[in-house]
Amino acid sequence: MTPPLTPPAIILSQTQMGENVGAAARAMKNFGLSELVLIAPKCEWPSDRAYMLASGSGDILDAAKIYPTAAEALAPYHLVLATTARGRDVVKEIHTPEAASKRLRAAADTGARTAILFGGERAGLDNDELSLADAVITIPTAEFSSLNLGQAVLLLGYEWLKSADTTPPMRTRPDIALPASRFELVGLFEHLEQELDAAQFFFPPAKREAMVRNIRAMIMRSGLTDQQVRTIRGMIVALVRNKYRGQKKEDT
Amino acid sequence: MTPPLTPPAIILSQTQMGENVGAAARAMKNFGLSELVLIAPKCEWPSDRAYMLASGSGDILDAAKIYPTAAEALAPYHLVLATTARGRDVVKEIHTPEAASKRLRAAADTGARTAILFGGERAGLDNDELSLADAVITIPTAEFSSLNLGQAVLLLGYEWLKSADTTPPMRTRPDIALPASRFELVGLFEHLEQELDAAQFFFPPAKREAMVRNIRAMIMRSGLTDQQVRTIRGMIVALVRNKYRGQKKEDT
Repeated sequence: MTPPLTPPAIILSQTQMGENVGAAARAMKNFGLSELVLIAPKCEWPSDRAYMLASGSGDILDAAKIYPTAAEALAPYHLVLATTARGRDVVKEIHTPEAASKRLRAAADTGARTAILFGGERAGLDNDELSLADAVITIPTAEFSSLNLGQAVLLLGYEWLKSADTTPPMRTRPDIALPASRFELVGLFEHLEQELDAAQFFFPPAKREAMVRNIRAMIMRSGLTDQQVRTIRGMIVALVRNKYRGQKKEDT
Repeated sequence: MTPPLTPPAIILSQTQMGENVGAAARAMKNFGLSELVLIAPKCEWPSDRAYMLASGSGDILDAAKIYPTAAEALAPYHLVLATTARGRDVVKEIHTPEAASKRLRAAADTGARTAILFGGERAGLDNDELSLADAVITIPTAEFSSLNLGQAVLLLGYEWLKSADTTPPMRTRPDIALPASRFELVGLFEHLEQELDAAQFFFPPAKREAMVRNIRAMIMRSGLTDQQVRTIRGMIVALVRNKYRGQKKEDT
């Protein structure tokens, strides 16, 4: 049995606002991260405002570890990736969040302890802190780039979860959305075409074949379920009934 | 010349808190989105709190359009994807944010106007609103799932930008991090090995070749720049100088 994989720790250096620690904790919990480490927080700690923003993830704040220096905080980790704003002069590999998540997961898979390091709100990471990181992560943005700490943690957490997420890119709920069988579809085609014949919809008759083909293609393309096929057949029955009723009125 | 592609509109239905509209605008601007539409906002509008949270993206709030109903708000769009929390009983395709972004971009590439629809903070989208959407987007999360409106807009905006982002997954800054030329590397190898020979580091001599190979591999693997090679050569010079000085002291 493989030992359970340990997700990366989120390490916040010199955070100025307790709110941002709380928002980070909430973001973490959404994406399965639980290990929070603070380096020399500049906000009071524990922080009421952090707990206010954590909403449901106070357990992560309770368990947060505090260290006075980056060297002590980072000591247990085998792979540390540091987030920076664009354009920092670092002679390190710069990863996208997606590539970083894959690297973190590959390391965690081998039993390594991993961490993502975030700098303070204003100045970011200092050069001493950066020197302890293996590589750098930069979040791609438009020209306007103004992500706060909680948002940066959110995006990294999201990519971490995505890096192992097996949700298919596109799906329908299998329990409620069984696609219609060919049997049901052919039943619909024949029912509809019979009523359209009766209504002399196909005109001129020479074009009937091509018109039928178009209508069938249109129906096929909409990816109906059994239930939807039944609904449409009910609509046809209802429309035909109303038409005959109308005709009767006209006739009388 | 191809016409410029129009990014998706962000459409917020029945938003209760102005803060969330402001956070959405800020998230949008980070990822190159600018068209904001509000359906029957439940907060006061314009909202001071929205402008407070928008920080730098007030222009998006200024230009926001307001409609009383979803039908009116969605009228101009050719493709509308609706965000929902997990497990809604919708008989529609469910996309991941990544797949949704690709679909939106493919549609926008053909000139279609596209939109992403977000429900109110508590109840989400109602069934009438959902019925006007082509498909549904669900953000993958851990079991704990508590993303607010601003965070959801942030993640969708991020995936939108990513769907066309050409940032390589991993890079070093080319202007400052020119990898060392083979000439520089060979210079380092020869310098280091010469000093190690002088220091009788290679022992037993029969193992010299294998030891040199290991040291060279270790150096190659670290991907040094020209500047780093020069730094290391300086270190070697300094270490050797100190050693001779030490020896001289011992000799005297």
